[in-house]
Amino acid sequence: MTEKKHILSILVDNEPGVLSRIAGLFSGRGYNIESLCVAETMDSKISRITMVTQGDYLILEQIKKQLNKLINTIKVSDLTELEYVEREMALVKVNAKLEHRAEILRITDIFRGQVVDVGQDHFTIMATGGSEKMAAILNLLKPFGIREMARTGSIALCREPKRNPDK
Amino acid sequence: MTEKKHILSILVDNEPGVLSRIAGLFSGRGYNIESLCVAETMDSKISRITMVTQGDYLILEQIKKQLNKLINTIKVSDLTELEYVEREMALVKVNAKLEHRAEILRITDIFRGQVVDVGQDHFTIMATGGSEKMAAILNLLKPFGIREMARTGSIALCREPKRNPDK
Repeated sequence: MTEKKHILSILVDNEPGVLSRIAGLFSGRGYNIESLCVAETMDSKISRITMVTQGDYLILEQIKKQLNKLINTIKVSDLTELEYVEREMALVKVNAKLEHRAEILRITDIFRGQVVDVGQDHFTIMATGGSEKMAAILNLLKPFGIREMARTGSIALCREPKRNPDK
Repeated sequence: MTEKKHILSILVDNEPGVLSRIAGLFSGRGYNIESLCVAETMDSKISRITMVTQGDYLILEQIKKQLNKLINTIKVSDLTELEYVEREMALVKVNAKLEHRAEILRITDIFRGQVVDVGQDHFTIMATGGSEKMAAILNLLKPFGIREMARTGSIALCREPKRNPDK
């Protein structure tokens, strides 16, 4: 039983009920979804669900088969079988006393984050990156006191196959 | 019947089945979810769901009541009733022929985006912003040909109340 992280990218009809049915396929097998993003594609009738899961490989294969059978599923891709680019985003509201402000801004700069809201004793920082980079910046901000955080979970796109087979 | 955009931020137990039940509350009333993000908070036992919906106000009030009754719901906030900071993120794989590359990079720079993958005839661009900014950059990239796109949907945090009542 291999428990590897999987990123599934699922194109579905943008209709009520689809998400609940898909999430139900996972929970029905006690299979937890680590993170999930749903939003419209360029065609507003179609949504893309990007899902990060971790768990038993055989169960996931069963779930993938059932996903393909759902009438509102257009395409299921397991990006973990391909090369892909993965990013996530977080908004982090962190305590920022006067004596800590310079250091918090330095950390934000190093990670190419942005301060999107500022108050007398806090910053709200937008950070983007792969999951390791996100863990690193959260780890550095934690000692100042994180008041609240919202994160998107990962989204991903496959890399294009190389055109030149020599490379 | 007022149809206004609502951003709900829901703290829930990080357990299988919770998402399916919550999504079911919306679809059971034919209420579509425009976008949705779920990810862990700093406490891995708790997840935050950020949801953008649009539809009848009275139905949403009913759904919010039922959300509060779910055993795995910790807190439901309707951020649209408060001041908030909202951001989303997208990965956009766009055609990039030699003669268009400079212009695509200029657009990316203006929107503070980043090129996260590059091939012989495409760029994958990471863009962040509020929903209007996202619509604007997608609109500018569209003429080059968008091959694929994954977007997170919005996440949001409330702004802190002002400490100084004179301001």
